[in-house]
Amino acid sequence: QPLKEVIFFPSEVACVEHIFTPGKANSCFCPLRHGVDTSFSRLLRHLMSASSSLDLCIFAFSNMDLSRAVVALHSRGLTIRVLTDKDYVAVSGSQIGVLRKAGICVHCVSCTMYMHHKFAVVDGRLLITGSLNWTLTAVQKNNENVIVTEEPDLLRPFIKEFQRLWEENDPA
Amino acid sequence: QPLKEVIFFPSEVACVEHIFTPGKANSCFCPLRHGVDTSFSRLLRHLMSASSSLDLCIFAFSNMDLSRAVVALHSRGLTIRVLTDKDYVAVSGSQIGVLRKAGICVHCVSCTMYMHHKFAVVDGRLLITGSLNWTLTAVQKNNENVIVTEEPDLLRPFIKEFQRLWEENDPA
Ligand SMILES: [Zn+2]
Ligand SMILES: [Zn+2]
Repeated sequence: QPLKEVIFFPSEVACVEHIFTPGKANSCFCPLRHGVDTSFSRLLRHLMSASSSLDLCIFAFSNMDLSRAVVALHSRGLTIRVLTDKDYVAVSGSQIGVLRKAGICVHCVSCTMYMHHKFAVVDGRLLITGSLNWTLTAVQKNNENVIVTEEPDLLRPFIKEFQRLWEENDPA
Repeated sequence: QPLKEVIFFPSEVACVEHIFTPGKANSCFCPLRHGVDTSFSRLLRHLMSASSSLDLCIFAFSNMDLSRAVVALHSRGLTIRVLTDKDYVAVSGSQIGVLRKAGICVHCVSCTMYMHHKFAVVDGRLLITGSLNWTLTAVQKNNENVIVTEEPDLLRPFIKEFQRLWEENDPA
């Protein structure tokens, strides 16, 4: 049975340091709760399970933990492609500049009113999609949903749509 | 195999009159294109397939065709429950007042920052969920996705989440 998981938000707030530095799981002394499994830590873990590629298609991206995750995957040598909305890039707190500075390839969609998708494809194998923008408010305050699935019938159309948007919005 | 369909937006613009009045399929003389299958007509058809109930959990609802669909289902005697964001109700063009005037039961979520979901459960059988708000801009201008599925593993959590939010936000 391919994975089919639904994660609801808002998420409890807890430390996610152990997801970035598994070796030091018990040595974080930040004021957040530790050793708690939350909606956000589940999302982050799925993302960090990537071993070869990440295609990300996201309207609003200001969450620094998620940005840290994407940069960490990039520095592990994964192929990262980020598609985002042209109008959101310059918004205060946007992490798109951080990604670009890290050397990650970003295409901006400018042919429509809004590129309103919020999905990621991990290793061409796992689809993460839903209502959740990658912001702190969305994660900690809003009622949101995220579907995480390996179901080929759902995965395939999203891979195709990503490729179509990626090629259509090539800055070159 | 349970239904698993992905619909992408923006949708082509075409007449949807035949979905509301199937008997008069060939008698509409509006200026829009006729006899065309679009993303929007597929969404509308899934919605109008409801025969007993519709649970709708939607952040922004201003699309008049979708409002017409919900009111039509209500007047057929279906049980309709609408959950929406308290801040969006008063927005210009919001269809929530139209639904309420038609006698449809609406609960507003006020305990979080935003009720940002965009999903519907048809007859407790079919899940419609994605990035798409029920606005004209989202349908006709934005890059959006909608998953339509009967997959029990995906359906069940959304039914449960709807019930939880519905009960938590009872105005009574
Ligand atoms: Zn910590
Ligand atoms: Zn017409």
